[in-house]
Amino acid sequence: MAAHPHLIIDGLQYCRWSKDIFQQMNAGGVSAVHVTIAYHENFRETVLAIEQWNRWFEDYADYIFLGKSGADIQRARDSGKTAIFFGFQNPSPIEDDIGLVEICFCLGARFMQLSYNNQSFLASGCYESVDTGITRFGKQVIKEMNRLGFVIDMSHSGDKSTLQAIDLSAKPIVISHANPHWWHEALRNKSHDILKALSDSKGLMGFSLYPHHLKNGSQCNINDFVDMIKKCAECYGIDYIALGTDLCQDQPDDIVKWMRNGRWAKDIDYGEGSKDNAGFPDNPIWFRNNLNFITIRKALLDNGFTQEEVHRIMGGNWLRFINEAF
Amino acid sequence: MAAHPHLIIDGLQYCRWSKDIFQQMNAGGVSAVHVTIAYHENFRETVLAIEQWNRWFEDYADYIFLGKSGADIQRARDSGKTAIFFGFQNPSPIEDDIGLVEICFCLGARFMQLSYNNQSFLASGCYESVDTGITRFGKQVIKEMNRLGFVIDMSHSGDKSTLQAIDLSAKPIVISHANPHWWHEALRNKSHDILKALSDSKGLMGFSLYPHHLKNGSQCNINDFVDMIKKCAECYGIDYIALGTDLCQDQPDDIVKWMRNGRWAKDIDYGEGSKDNAGFPDNPIWFRNNLNFITIRKALLDNGFTQEEVHRIMGGNWLRFINEAF
Repeated sequence: MAAHPHLIIDGLQYCRWSKDIFQQMNAGGVSAVHVTIAYHENFRETVLAIEQWNRWFEDYADYIFLGKSGADIQRARDSGKTAIFFGFQNPSPIEDDIGLVEICFCLGARFMQLSYNNQSFLASGCYESVDTGITRFGKQVIKEMNRLGFVIDMSHSGDKSTLQAIDLSAKPIVISHANPHWWHEALRNKSHDILKALSDSKGLMGFSLYPHHLKNGSQCNINDFVDMIKKCAECYGIDYIALGTDLCQDQPDDIVKWMRNGRWAKDIDYGEGSKDNAGFPDNPIWFRNNLNFITIRKALLDNGFTQEEVHRIMGGNWLRFINEAF
Repeated sequence: MAAHPHLIIDGLQYCRWSKDIFQQMNAGGVSAVHVTIAYHENFRETVLAIEQWNRWFEDYADYIFLGKSGADIQRARDSGKTAIFFGFQNPSPIEDDIGLVEICFCLGARFMQLSYNNQSFLASGCYESVDTGITRFGKQVIKEMNRLGFVIDMSHSGDKSTLQAIDLSAKPIVISHANPHWWHEALRNKSHDILKALSDSKGLMGFSLYPHHLKNGSQCNINDFVDMIKKCAECYGIDYIALGTDLCQDQPDDIVKWMRNGRWAKDIDYGEGSKDNAGFPDNPIWFRNNLNFITIRKALLDNGFTQEEVHRIMGGNWLRFINEAF
């Protein structure tokens, strides 16, 4: 396989993984992807998910391998493969046990959200009416994650919890997949104050392409998207913005139900959707799979970003962050 | 800490771990120890044991660290520390799931017995009246262990299972802690045929200092022990013999009860002991802790082994084996 001509790194995906998708990652020139391996799974269930990935790493060794460091991203780029970085969207895999943080790190996990929409043992989710901030256990977990080089992700957390995580963490954190609230007023998109505090602390945000996070949803125009990136570059700095597409390719609708409801809800929660629009929304026509990063790249270049700026947004910033974080 | 003057590697210990014992390992010049972290524990319980070790690696970083390769042994020797290699005396941590073999390997495990006295899912134990040989699941696990570089240990397995494991494994295996049956007729000691097949396949045996495996038990004379080693060197080759002391320092007697009975027995099994002698036997006066390897070393030299031969028996053979196996 030929080396990838450009550095492309995606800060979040949760697809229904298949050989086709892994081939698309390679063909699309994607050197690394942070993939979600747990939403509400406990430790033992997360181990089963890792076992499944280990099997894919064997079966599809021509396309993917487990990424653990920045060097792995370079190796993927040189060989035309894709390094897969594990992450959790919820701290459910560590249960109530600080020792499980290192165990999960040993098994390959590199990103963990401190909460997912709801209150967790560590922090509040963005859908709660009361934000506790970082809990007693949460403070210890942040210290442990810092020690190991395990990246804190606050994509689905409440504002107070997020600001406290930025302050408490000795290392920069990420919001791997979201957009600015001033561009599109979704509950999951982030306020200017959050994004400013994040970038001031050298933290990274990944722009989401999940339709509920986009202006005009599935009909979002790519020029609007690029315009938003341009404003973010001016406001937060070219070094602190990247991609985190939240691509959920080929997933059936029962998966978005699991994401939103886990085992906690008897009364169905529709999250960013509604009863009449409960399933996965359609992605914009210009971003349907891993072959489409080239479209975003071209749109950035056509809209006045320099080659170097495009390099940073498309992957350079993630690579620098990962090299410093892990 | 000064570098260890000689290479000393112990192929099995299961002590009641403490700062004192870790200091004794360093002071006794022990560069690496294969420690048992599971007897009957399932996967989830084994993870808790690893969490405890991870805590010790942090708290006692001046003395010990997790060993994963031969290079770690050299690093331990150079720094005067001790590399700790994890092993299971039973395949209970992998339950009935082939995927857990790689998960356990990722968490640091490097040795696994295919059975412990009883029938397991993989092989028969040496106390069973019928030896099934290697089971259907066992054959797949051997292949998987070979792929990963996870060492097969048959110390507590039946003869037929052991001979089949030697044949089926693409890599040499070990009997990490036992002595020849012709020297002391304990059920756990190994027949000439087993030891011959083991060494013919470049497998390694570690000499045990557990009193039930010794001629005259706790009263065993060191010259008798060295004489046995001499006969083994002649019979099986100087490259295929090493130490595996089975040191159980500071353990209370309820631990040997757990080893023998796990959760499987309501009628108490006394293993190599008896109702009147149910606890841990006293070790020979000349081998009570990690400071005493120098005594064995001296006895080998005094009894006509060359410096090079002593080097191999005390650690050189383990280092070569580990370099080739992992």
